[in-house]
Amino acid sequence: MSPKVGVIMGSKSDWDTMKLACDVLDELGISYEKKVVSAHRTPDLMFEYAETAAERGLKVIIAGAGGAAHLPGMVAAKTALPVIGVPVKSSNLNGIDSLLSIVQMPAGIPVATVAIGNAGGSNAGLLAAQILGAFDPEVQARVIARREQTKQAVLESSDTL
Amino acid sequence: MSPKVGVIMGSKSDWDTMKLACDVLDELGISYEKKVVSAHRTPDLMFEYAETAAERGLKVIIAGAGGAAHLPGMVAAKTALPVIGVPVKSSNLNGIDSLLSIVQMPAGIPVATVAIGNAGGSNAGLLAAQILGAFDPEVQARVIARREQTKQAVLESSDTL
Amino acid sequence: MSPKVGVIMGSKSDWDTMKLACDVLDELGISYEKKVVSAHRTPDLMFEYAETAAERGLKVIIAGAGGAAHLPGMVAAKTALPVIGVPVKSSNLNGIDSLLSIVQMPAGIPVATVAIGNAGGSNAGLLAAQILGAFDPEVQARVIARREQTKQAVLESSDTL
Amino acid sequence: MSPKVGVIMGSKSDWDTMKLACDVLDELGISYEKKVVSAHRTPDLMFEYAETAAERGLKVIIAGAGGAAHLPGMVAAKTALPVIGVPVKSSNLNGIDSLLSIVQMPAGIPVATVAIGNAGGSNAGLLAAQILGAFDPEVQARVIARREQTKQAVLESSDTL
Amino acid sequence: MSPKVGVIMGSKSDWDTMKLACDVLDELGISYEKKVVSAHRTPDLMFEYAETAAERGLKVIIAGAGGAAHLPGMVAAKTALPVIGVPVKSSNLNGIDSLLSIVQMPAGIPVATVAIGNAGGSNAGLLAAQILGAFDPEVQARVIARREQTKQAVLESSDTL
Amino acid sequence: MSPKVGVIMGSKSDWDTMKLACDVLDELGISYEKKVVSAHRTPDLMFEYAETAAERGLKVIIAGAGGAAHLPGMVAAKTALPVIGVPVKSSNLNGIDSLLSIVQMPAGIPVATVAIGNAGGSNAGLLAAQILGAFDPEVQARVIARREQTKQAVLESSDTL
Amino acid sequence: MSPKVGVIMGSKSDWDTMKLACDVLDELGISYEKKVVSAHRTPDLMFEYAETAAERGLKVIIAGAGGAAHLPGMVAAKTALPVIGVPVKSSNLNGIDSLLSIVQMPAGIPVATVAIGNAGGSNAGLLAAQILGAFDPEVQARVIARREQTKQAVLESSDTL
Amino acid sequence: MSPKVGVIMGSKSDWDTMKLACDVLDELGISYEKKVVSAHRTPDLMFEYAETAAERGLKVIIAGAGGAAHLPGMVAAKTALPVIGVPVKSSNLNGIDSLLSIVQMPAGIPVATVAIGNAGGSNAGLLAAQILGAFDPEVQARVIARREQTKQAVLESSDTL
Repeated sequence: MSPKVGVIMGSKSDWDTMKLACDVLDELGISYEKKVVSAHRTPDLMFEYAETAAERGLKVIIAGAGGAAHLPGMVAAKTALPVIGVPVKSSNLNGIDSLLSIVQMPAGIPVATVAIGNAGGSNAGLLAAQILGAFDPEVQARVIARREQTKQAVLESSDTL
Repeated sequence: MSPKVGVIMGSKSDWDTMKLACDVLDELGISYEKKVVSAHRTPDLMFEYAETAAERGLKVIIAGAGGAAHLPGMVAAKTALPVIGVPVKSSNLNGIDSLLSIVQMPAGIPVATVAIGNAGGSNAGLLAAQILGAFDPEVQARVIARREQTKQAVLESSDTL
Repeated sequence: MSPKVGVIMGSKSDWDTMKLACDVLDELGISYEKKVVSAHRTPDLMFEYAETAAERGLKVIIAGAGGAAHLPGMVAAKTALPVIGVPVKSSNLNGIDSLLSIVQMPAGIPVATVAIGNAGGSNAGLLAAQILGAFDPEVQARVIARREQTKQAVLESSDTL
Repeated sequence: MSPKVGVIMGSKSDWDTMKLACDVLDELGISYEKKVVSAHRTPDLMFEYAETAAERGLKVIIAGAGGAAHLPGMVAAKTALPVIGVPVKSSNLNGIDSLLSIVQMPAGIPVATVAIGNAGGSNAGLLAAQILGAFDPEVQARVIARREQTKQAVLESSDTL
Repeated sequence: MSPKVGVIMGSKSDWDTMKLACDVLDELGISYEKKVVSAHRTPDLMFEYAETAAERGLKVIIAGAGGAAHLPGMVAAKTALPVIGVPVKSSNLNGIDSLLSIVQMPAGIPVATVAIGNAGGSNAGLLAAQILGAFDPEVQARVIARREQTKQAVLESSDTL
Repeated sequence: MSPKVGVIMGSKSDWDTMKLACDVLDELGISYEKKVVSAHRTPDLMFEYAETAAERGLKVIIAGAGGAAHLPGMVAAKTALPVIGVPVKSSNLNGIDSLLSIVQMPAGIPVATVAIGNAGGSNAGLLAAQILGAFDPEVQARVIARREQTKQAVLESSDTL
Repeated sequence: MSPKVGVIMGSKSDWDTMKLACDVLDELGISYEKKVVSAHRTPDLMFEYAETAAERGLKVIIAGAGGAAHLPGMVAAKTALPVIGVPVKSSNLNGIDSLLSIVQMPAGIPVATVAIGNAGGSNAGLLAAQILGAFDPEVQARVIARREQTKQAVLESSDTL
Repeated sequence: MSPKVGVIMGSKSDWDTMKLACDVLDELGISYEKKVVSAHRTPDLMFEYAETAAERGLKVIIAGAGGAAHLPGMVAAKTALPVIGVPVKSSNLNGIDSLLSIVQMPAGIPVATVAIGNAGGSNAGLLAAQILGAFDPEVQARVIARREQTKQAVLESSDTL
């Protein structure tokens, strides 16, 4: 099955966070590809990746980066697919720089930004699934089933306080 | 045609920003509905709106709010559809409170957050179109055509410096 | 004795902070109940909890949450009881996101917000006691006696510099 | 009827914000007194005010101040009544300094902090009413009735988008 | 004379700030070209501009942008020339987003960042001149002469207090 | 010799920082007294301390506190002596709350604020010495001699890079 | 009478704020001199000013600057007199940059920092007076008398709410 | 060969960060000198260093400092050479204070600011090389070759996800 979601990151050091997106996609049975693509160190590869994403069958791109995080916004500039941006926690400013570099896009090119760090990594996978699920009842059903599990886990955790 | 996108906002005072989302949807020929739904003042209406969104045919929800902006995240908690959050500029903290209240969602319930204020309002409409466009070539073509116009506008503006 | 204070939190991971509220309530002989109630993962339970709080005899609700912390504000939207919000320290932004998500409520639905993290957890218990104490001289006397102890501890600590 | 709520502020320039608390109290038929009491310019008056508040019949104190806002915390240090702190918007830092000076109280002396500026002013009045209402069904009924009106206003505003 | 400095900006709305860079270059007799080049709306033009900059004889590029300001960093990724980044004041966050998006570049691709807004616009022109002046005594002499004038202006202003 | 400088702190946990002030005073041969005085837990002691400071021969007061740090400003409100405020690093917000609570005093009551944390602790001692030294040549000579040592240490450290 | 206080500022545009320091000094009958001295545009003058300050009879220096505000710290590096730093409100960052540039001095060279903007300007004059007053009973008496007036003004303002 | 780049830092504790600049310069075969020069503890040495830099053959100065970081800006005030400022991570505020103290220079004296901490240290060396390379094809070729290596490293890292 050709991948529906592309998961890219600016550096291999972002993998700990971005792996969480892949874990959710695995869990929900959604095919994806993953790659290190650096806006600053491999700019041509980034453009080529974004330009060919739609024709290769991708429906959503998840892009994670930290600091002056340009990857999500630049990929969004080169594709009409929805791009989800994950602000990876940066070593000095805790990801506030990553967040603002990703979310504050000018009118014309949106990036669907999720939370800083691991919560964002995991939620990027889920958001991709919800986008696919809006057009694929089977995927949506799996998202709903996963939520039910999460709810049960909360209810049970309460008994152990 | 039943609406594909639901545009909601926490207060009528958010309309200036949220109207920009509607303008883009109008421009791209995407059907939508619009409503004031307050997380804090009409919580039951909010839950009902979110719970019935998918069955009413919506594919994407755009929710704008300011300050302790709970509307996007709470709607996201009650629907499996993708929810786009617009951090409306707040009167005292310039929308930083709105942004953090919307984007910092815990793992399990993502909100696709866009920029603070008017750029975010406009981009929320575009992001909804890009999500629909990933599954509808005609909509995608209109998104691409709109980008081409924007590009021409930039090129022309350069001559007037 | 039916509980006077409800202590809820968005996740079991908030317990370290919220336990400090319970410790103070125990110390001051105030009856309470405790529960994990997640705004995002168990929204219906949250609404039911808030809606029935007053009729079950609660006088004050203490709600702790981190990140995009919607629990205190959403509970406040569904009950006329005073709600105390505890901004739990978040892993990336040190609780600034929790604080702004809780305190910046719009006119109409207040949340009585205390300090970020453990000081806030402990003070939430005290604030609940002070609210009860304003209408119950015995409780107020215990609050005053506890303050006297704290004062003595400060005075003694000075001798050990 | 002796006042149930004391409304104090650090400077007459805080009145625009604090008047909103008084307006809500008037609207809900709650008796109150109002006064300028400056932590830094009238410290002895502040201590006397706080020390005698309970015996004069006050049940709740609302204290507003801006910048290095010490009034709410210092009043809280001198009374066992619940103290609501209103961070007045400051001229240079938009009230972030006021907020942190009020909310970040150390364990032992809580301040029930509301939003920065006018939303906080209005909500301070409401929070005082909710505290009184927890022990006075008539006041609570008025709070609930007021909420119903607010809800209707939201529903009607939606028709005018 | 072929231009030594390229002055580019992400939007025509940045011109008020970027004009100040051009003014300084004019004043110091340094040849330059100016252009609107948007990272997000004209990404291919941006890459072409950066790739050909050195061969066209440019020695320094000045790039200004606001919000999620990707222009300076992306240009820097595509040229080995020094790139000066000007964080244009953004409408909601006062340019803090612009600053962090420009300055927090990862190891490997530096951007020489100057102050937010007009001081930065003007100083970008001066910094370009100082870079050229390090290798051209005549330009350096003009920089030094300009400083002398500034010094005299300060001394004279003191008499008018 | 009666002490010239009073060193006070809001909690014994501030001692690590405040000890650095005492170390500098010891080093420069300036007599001082030290004490834990809490604005919130021992407010009456604080007022008494401040009111009697001048008559007891103190010339400068150094007050350190963290979080909603009210001690320096409240002491300043009760004495006409110069008060130096040390923003102790707070556990959640790194002392930004301490800094703003101390430095943002309203017109009428200044606090001479130094840096957050240990640099501030040490510099508070030095600033007190510089104030005394402006009126006591011997103290000033010791301050100058200490600076000369610091300078030598910098020069020597350069050789070990 | 030779001036006791030197009031300097980095730019004539700081005068609106620094005039408030001079107004207080005038009011309290303290002799002072005033001058524009720019750290960046007249660095040699700055060093000369600081080096000769003590021998010219100054007891305290008040230095105001905005943005990357280096004047107070650099003057402090060149004199053993106490230096009061006034963070002038900056056009883009509201003086947060000025504040951090002034207050965060490393151990060894303190600057007595006051509030951002006009409150700081006025309080710098008062702090200088309090320093002089610690060694001159007449000045101290005038400071105390001024406080008494301020207190009366607060008390009277309360009647006009 | 006389050094082309001067690498200075405010304290030996900055060496870990500044060493990274030296490493890059070593790697690219660029001659440099290194020194501890403190703005506050050795101000005269700083001025002398800056004043003689150009005549000693330096083309670029790299200056690193933390907290109220005045070294880069003050050196820039005393030389017409381009000065690169490295905001060293500070112990309490993570280098935000260093960044604002360095980058927010007033019009007239620019500092070419790079990222906070280690990325900035390394990039300062690269930026110096890019400045030299704009006028020396051999250096530029080495910069380009280094980038090619970095690119290869990114591509290879992708295979190990």
